Amino acid sequence: MSILVVGSVAIDSVKTPFGERAEALGGSATYFSIAASFFNRVNIIATVGEDFPPEYIRLFKNRRIGIGGLHVAKGKTFRWKGWYDYEFNTAHTVYTHLNVFKNFKPEVPRELRKSKHLFLANINPELQYNVLRQLERPRLVAADSMNYWLEHKKKEFERLVGKVDILLLNDSEARQFSGESNLVDAARFIVSAGPKVVIIKRGEHGVMYFSKNSRFTAPAYLLESIRDPTGAGDTFAGGLVGYLSKTPRINEASMRKGIIYGSILASFAVEDFSVNRLLGISIGDIHARYRRFRTQTRF
Amino acid sequence: MSILVVGSVAIDSVKTPFGERAEALGGSATYFSIAASFFNRVNIIATVGEDFPPEYIRLFKNRRIGIGGLHVAKGKTFRWKGWYDYEFNTAHTVYTHLNVFKNFKPEVPRELRKSKHLFLANINPELQYNVLRQLERPRLVAADSMNYWLEHKKKEFERLVGKVDILLLNDSEARQFSGESNLVDAARFIVSAGPKVVIIKRGEHGVMYFSKNSRFTAPAYLLESIRDPTGAGDTFAGGLVGYLSKTPRINEASMRKGIIYGSILASFAVEDFSVNRLLGISIGDIHARYRRFRTQTRF
Repeated sequence: MSILVVGSVAIDSVKTPFGERAEALGGSATYFSIAASFFNRVNIIATVGEDFPPEYIRLFKNRRIGIGGLHVAKGKTFRWKGWYDYEFNTAHTVYTHLNVFKNFKPEVPRELRKSKHLFLANINPELQYNVLRQLERPRLVAADSMNYWLEHKKKEFERLVGKVDILLLNDSEARQFSGESNLVDAARFIVSAGPKVVIIKRGEHGVMYFSKNSRFTAPAYLLESIRDPTGAGDTFAGGLVGYLSKTPRINEASMRKGIIYGSILASFAVEDFSVNRLLGISIGDIHARYRRFRTQTRF
Repeated sequence: MSILVVGSVAIDSVKTPFGERAEALGGSATYFSIAASFFNRVNIIATVGEDFPPEYIRLFKNRRIGIGGLHVAKGKTFRWKGWYDYEFNTAHTVYTHLNVFKNFKPEVPRELRKSKHLFLANINPELQYNVLRQLERPRLVAADSMNYWLEHKKKEFERLVGKVDILLLNDSEARQFSGESNLVDAARFIVSAGPKVVIIKRGEHGVMYFSKNSRFTAPAYLLESIRDPTGAGDTFAGGLVGYLSKTPRINEASMRKGIIYGSILASFAVEDFSVNRLLGISIGDIHARYRRFRTQTRF
């Protein structure tokens, strides 16, 4: 019942009003797998260059994250440099060097094709679809995307979303894909396009979840210090899929709990740069914050 | 145990992407009193001009809203004209004609000085303080304000907030008054400045509530159609104070419920222009939406 993630393992340089870090560990598969590893075994499919620091490899190994599918290719690792001002919902890119990621053709090794839980992080929807087809009988498939693919690979994206259980988008992506300005209308459109549920991530404003028959909204966990929002969405997905992978039944109740666990994991991630804060917490810290979140929202 | 509100009764002309209305009933005391009237008797202290339409007077009377303190002065009624684009959290003003409101010196008639629940809508904090001092022994005092007073009457505002139980602000006002960008820090500063609790209104992003010992956050009720956000904040206050005025004890639990009732009332108000939607609902509709909100947020 383990988890498979396909996405990027990258080296990020990030500046925010609260500091900066150069050449730190990043990438969607990185954030996802570390978050999910609190709940279950995770295997990564990604590619890095020959320059990828061995201490990051050790970091994955120490958390028992499977890197059999982490391909080391000739060349340099994917690098992203960006900054945020106080409006943390918008990342400003300085550069994106795809490097070895340019030729990324994810292949699922035979022994991982029985993986039961799959997260397709934000990559070309053709590749996402390809990976999905290689799995034998997944129990849960979640996918993320971004505005670029919604615009330039709309058909491929539509084919993909017809096959996934959970589609994760932020609010502007949901509006873009649906052509609806109201998020309830947008969600209704999206759910009619294929995925069983859509989760709309709104950063500091929390999260919404829609299926054909239900709606769920949750505010964000109240934080006193947000230092770097990079990776929050993938960390959210890691908490969500990680939690769901361990539940006996995936239903309305466990989905809602999973969404809160996702929010809690993301709330830790943004408290420091890179994955630093995630590396310093225990599952006990996560449960404690989950309980505080209940207190914060109960009426 | 009735409610007293001091604020404006106005004539509004509003345009949004979903339509427009000219010369419609508006004003903070109007929205507040109609919302609160679902729960309890409300008395208004405000001033209008000789041109104030008699059908609006009848509207208040029909809802048993007390207008003994609604002074008809020589001149014209307060008029506001404004518009919104899709970003509903920002009102753009075309004009504000204070008219008779310019000389508004609220006096509390002797028979209303025993009012137990007071809402000081957004007016000059000197006037708010003056009204507060005329009440004999209120059980609950809530106050609203706006950026203009925080800047130009800061001392008077600080004197006022030292005397109120609930201070209502939106997020930018909370940041402005506290000088803190993080809302948790802002709230901590504000609560140390006097009010027992501060409620930070975030429009479509819900509401936060802070006291010395607790924090509460709630998302907004999910709406499919928002036509005019004018008056949402005062309607929220009306639902909150109206609900609390009928509870035997004002404590953490009733405060949270009151905040949800405030949100529910506001969710109705924004579905149509002016107070039109509020006039078409019953207390049963309000309770039904409250229950749907519970379903929407439970985990």
